[in-house]
Amino acid sequence: MKTTILIHCPDQAGIIATVTSFISKNEGNIVYLDQHVDKPANVFFMRTVVEFEEHFSHLDHFKSLFQKELATAYNMKWSLHTDDKLPKMVIFVSKYKHCLYDLLSRYRSGELAVEIPFILSNHNDLKQIADQFNIPFYHIPFNKENRLEAEKKQLALLEKYEADFIVLARYMQIVSGTLINRYPNKIINIHHSFLPAFAGAKPYHAAFKRGVKIIGATSHYVTEELDAGPIIEQDVTTVTHSHSIKDFIAKGRDLEKIVLSRGVMLHIARKTMVYNNKTVIFS
Amino acid sequence: MKTTILIHCPDQAGIIATVTSFISKNEGNIVYLDQHVDKPANVFFMRTVVEFEEHFSHLDHFKSLFQKELATAYNMKWSLHTDDKLPKMVIFVSKYKHCLYDLLSRYRSGELAVEIPFILSNHNDLKQIADQFNIPFYHIPFNKENRLEAEKKQLALLEKYEADFIVLARYMQIVSGTLINRYPNKIINIHHSFLPAFAGAKPYHAAFKRGVKIIGATSHYVTEELDAGPIIEQDVTTVTHSHSIKDFIAKGRDLEKIVLSRGVMLHIARKTMVYNNKTVIFS
Amino acid sequence: MKTTILIHCPDQAGIIATVTSFISKNEGNIVYLDQHVDKPANVFFMRTVVEFEEHFSHLDHFKSLFQKELATAYNMKWSLHTDDKLPKMVIFVSKYKHCLYDLLSRYRSGELAVEIPFILSNHNDLKQIADQFNIPFYHIPFNKENRLEAEKKQLALLEKYEADFIVLARYMQIVSGTLINRYPNKIINIHHSFLPAFAGAKPYHAAFKRGVKIIGATSHYVTEELDAGPIIEQDVTTVTHSHSIKDFIAKGRDLEKIVLSRGVMLHIARKTMVYNNKTVIFS
Amino acid sequence: MKTTILIHCPDQAGIIATVTSFISKNEGNIVYLDQHVDKPANVFFMRTVVEFEEHFSHLDHFKSLFQKELATAYNMKWSLHTDDKLPKMVIFVSKYKHCLYDLLSRYRSGELAVEIPFILSNHNDLKQIADQFNIPFYHIPFNKENRLEAEKKQLALLEKYEADFIVLARYMQIVSGTLINRYPNKIINIHHSFLPAFAGAKPYHAAFKRGVKIIGATSHYVTEELDAGPIIEQDVTTVTHSHSIKDFIAKGRDLEKIVLSRGVMLHIARKTMVYNNKTVIFS
Repeated sequence: MKTTILIHCPDQAGIIATVTSFISKNEGNIVYLDQHVDKPANVFFMRTVVEFEEHFSHLDHFKSLFQKELATAYNMKWSLHTDDKLPKMVIFVSKYKHCLYDLLSRYRSGELAVEIPFILSNHNDLKQIADQFNIPFYHIPFNKENRLEAEKKQLALLEKYEADFIVLARYMQIVSGTLINRYPNKIINIHHSFLPAFAGAKPYHAAFKRGVKIIGATSHYVTEELDAGPIIEQDVTTVTHSHSIKDFIAKGRDLEKIVLSRGVMLHIARKTMVYNNKTVIFS
Repeated sequence: MKTTILIHCPDQAGIIATVTSFISKNEGNIVYLDQHVDKPANVFFMRTVVEFEEHFSHLDHFKSLFQKELATAYNMKWSLHTDDKLPKMVIFVSKYKHCLYDLLSRYRSGELAVEIPFILSNHNDLKQIADQFNIPFYHIPFNKENRLEAEKKQLALLEKYEADFIVLARYMQIVSGTLINRYPNKIINIHHSFLPAFAGAKPYHAAFKRGVKIIGATSHYVTEELDAGPIIEQDVTTVTHSHSIKDFIAKGRDLEKIVLSRGVMLHIARKTMVYNNKTVIFS
Repeated sequence: MKTTILIHCPDQAGIIATVTSFISKNEGNIVYLDQHVDKPANVFFMRTVVEFEEHFSHLDHFKSLFQKELATAYNMKWSLHTDDKLPKMVIFVSKYKHCLYDLLSRYRSGELAVEIPFILSNHNDLKQIADQFNIPFYHIPFNKENRLEAEKKQLALLEKYEADFIVLARYMQIVSGTLINRYPNKIINIHHSFLPAFAGAKPYHAAFKRGVKIIGATSHYVTEELDAGPIIEQDVTTVTHSHSIKDFIAKGRDLEKIVLSRGVMLHIARKTMVYNNKTVIFS
Repeated sequence: MKTTILIHCPDQAGIIATVTSFISKNEGNIVYLDQHVDKPANVFFMRTVVEFEEHFSHLDHFKSLFQKELATAYNMKWSLHTDDKLPKMVIFVSKYKHCLYDLLSRYRSGELAVEIPFILSNHNDLKQIADQFNIPFYHIPFNKENRLEAEKKQLALLEKYEADFIVLARYMQIVSGTLINRYPNKIINIHHSFLPAFAGAKPYHAAFKRGVKIIGATSHYVTEELDAGPIIEQDVTTVTHSHSIKDFIAKGRDLEKIVLSRGVMLHIARKTMVYNNKTVIFS
């Protein structure tokens, strides 16, 4: 069984040796280790992948030992993930097709190690894509009047299906604090600019007006401040004076779908850690 | 003699045919033509490179005909450039070496078809590089008190040497409206971010704080609004959580020097046109 | 009606003026013009988009005039394309899903202005994707013994459905000279390397073995010499020592699908011309 | 004192724990650790940066303990580097200026932590650049007749100045096996293509002829097989049909200088390890 352990804690001398020795003594073989120290913040980050001996049968014992002997002493925040259960990923969409198609195509091609219990939208337009891929689709209209009630329905569905994380695949709606607090660093959004440039609505129009020579896309975890959450992945492409806003949008679609899918894949692989509104990406 | 003609005017049907026929009738052979229509603004742009017949000896006549028969009728802004005289490029620097070294190395390698009459700085630090390349160096200190007087000296030098355009090679000072108005779209600056992100001072610190995964550089014509002038060229490079601010600065240096030099080369080759605070780059 | 005219011919002075004047005189308004001269080969290329006056009703007359007055005199190869009929694009696949999913997703999203009369494969694996998108699927097994017969069936289908061009979406089979000659510069393949590096089979394995730091993909027109046809589009991505062959393949999938789709879109938009086994891409 | 330790050896369980515990016990604080396992080859690689306690004064003792307790047991190849002495870098050039200018500009700007004892060339053309930067320049002509004698002179100079490594900054000569064996994985070359494409001479001409849409550059360690040594760094840029061979060369110059300098900087920082004709780059 492949086990991924994520740790962060105040930095101090000897910490790598201590953790790796602990794992060795407890019958784990470290097959991957990456570490980072955020010096200004004095925080130590570590991601390690461990394979336990075949007869190993006491992960709960390992975890309680880890907590007692290491985590408490070093004031660690840590988590341990095994690969025996697929995480449940819910997709929120609005009317744009390209990100949804890309995610579902990868899912059916075996590129995403998840379950997709359902797709949720405030419009009915993309139901036919959900049908095409045989995934339940819920249409929960959303407007100023029914806002609270709609959110309640969303949360009920997420609970019912035991969602692990949410992907906003060009969802085009601002997500409420309630939802964000329920899924901290577990809601991934795609913004169609190289943030922090052109935060907010209509970034391609703003980019065209400014006359930039590159456009971009950014996948990030959603926080309460709009388009200001921890950035997971960014990419850009060049544009010239000869490209219209329509061309920006067309070129941007390819960026958006790739950058969102890369962000999702990093999240699934437990390669992301969040601290101080920034990510550590052990890729 | 190679002649470059730049035109922009309100768009209308038949304009390409009219201009190209005029040139043909007047013994010019079009060896390159690029054209662009800014549809929202309804403006036509054209850059054409013309070779005249060997016996051709009346460029002034051509120019006055062009004005009379075409430019007035079509309400054109136009300019004509021959390659028999090198433009005079003045470099303003402060304390950073990399952009100056890159420009002077290209100059000495024959990559920049310019004369460099002098280098100007508010500090004395880079005099030795100017000496190394045998280029006059003027040190004009600059502070709140002597601001106006210093500018007067700058302008006097620029006039005396008949500067055609100015390159701010990490000059680190805000250029006054007087200078900008004297050299409109003729002052090229390098900003160390992918504008409009992180305009203003200390962009690498801001980028680090925001946790972006790409950093960039932008060369642009200087206008009175800080870091908001027409963008000539941009490029980016990737960064990760493992890069410190010092790493951002080091990676950024390579971007800055390349993006500035590309901007300068486009300007020298008459491949840039400015309209509505944006550039048309016929590259 | 939007009309695209593609021309190439021996270069000579005055040719742009002659063509643009001809179009103007014949009630066409040039909305786009791009031109290129291959100097070593002394060949002139031009792509122009023309809008004819509303009452214009004699495209056949225009074409015969164009041939008589221009094409014969200048020894032009030329073609004229109107946008009133969608080209018919046939997709050949084998077992890989990602390129097929990307093409069909774009098709359903309205990004590809084509009809897809059918998908053809030497395996049955991807029939379910064709079904999912409601597109006819033909399974024609292919082996050493039935080679000629299988090709006959392929050709019969292509004729029956009046295919305009063919996309090999990771087809994994060598296409015969018969098919290539029937569809010259009309069969688009995706090769999973930055050609000419790693031509032939298993490029990711070869790239891994060589220890390259970039991998790439190339879309090109198929010619009889394997992986040596005119290149339409290429792109690359970085890899490191930490990536396994499996990682190369995963990163490559994203390159392949984007580079193939871009090549297909350039072809559909009539932005490609082929000469001397190279492409001129008026993008 | 900052100490960098590089290790590679057959992979086995527990090795990270063993090494890190050893360092901790011997008063070293691990400030950076990166590790890699080449699974097909079953080789473990590790780079760690260690800071020893202030009173630490027995590096020789540490080294002999390391050899005895770890290296022998694990069959390690290892090296330990302190930062108290700058490595001596010799530059070989021919007639091209751009890479030499870039290296010397970085050197004078403090970007390269080396000494440059001398520059060597088979031509006299670049002597003036060496003079400009006050670095000794040796002109050793090189031809079929004097080959062996010239090499002897080269080796004598390298010995005399105690060169640590050699940079071929567009040297344009094939280096002999004698020199390569004397400086294994210590001669860095820049090749002006994205190897393995266009190995050998005149890669830009070959790239132009093939009609590629990207060109590149590769820095690599020199081995006896031409252009086939371990790749350190590669980068590419896009080209179009409109670029002539001259344009390829101009765009390539910027790639070459950046890719060579990056390769040199990785080497200086001890971030490169070589195994099976490939590099592990801990960047």
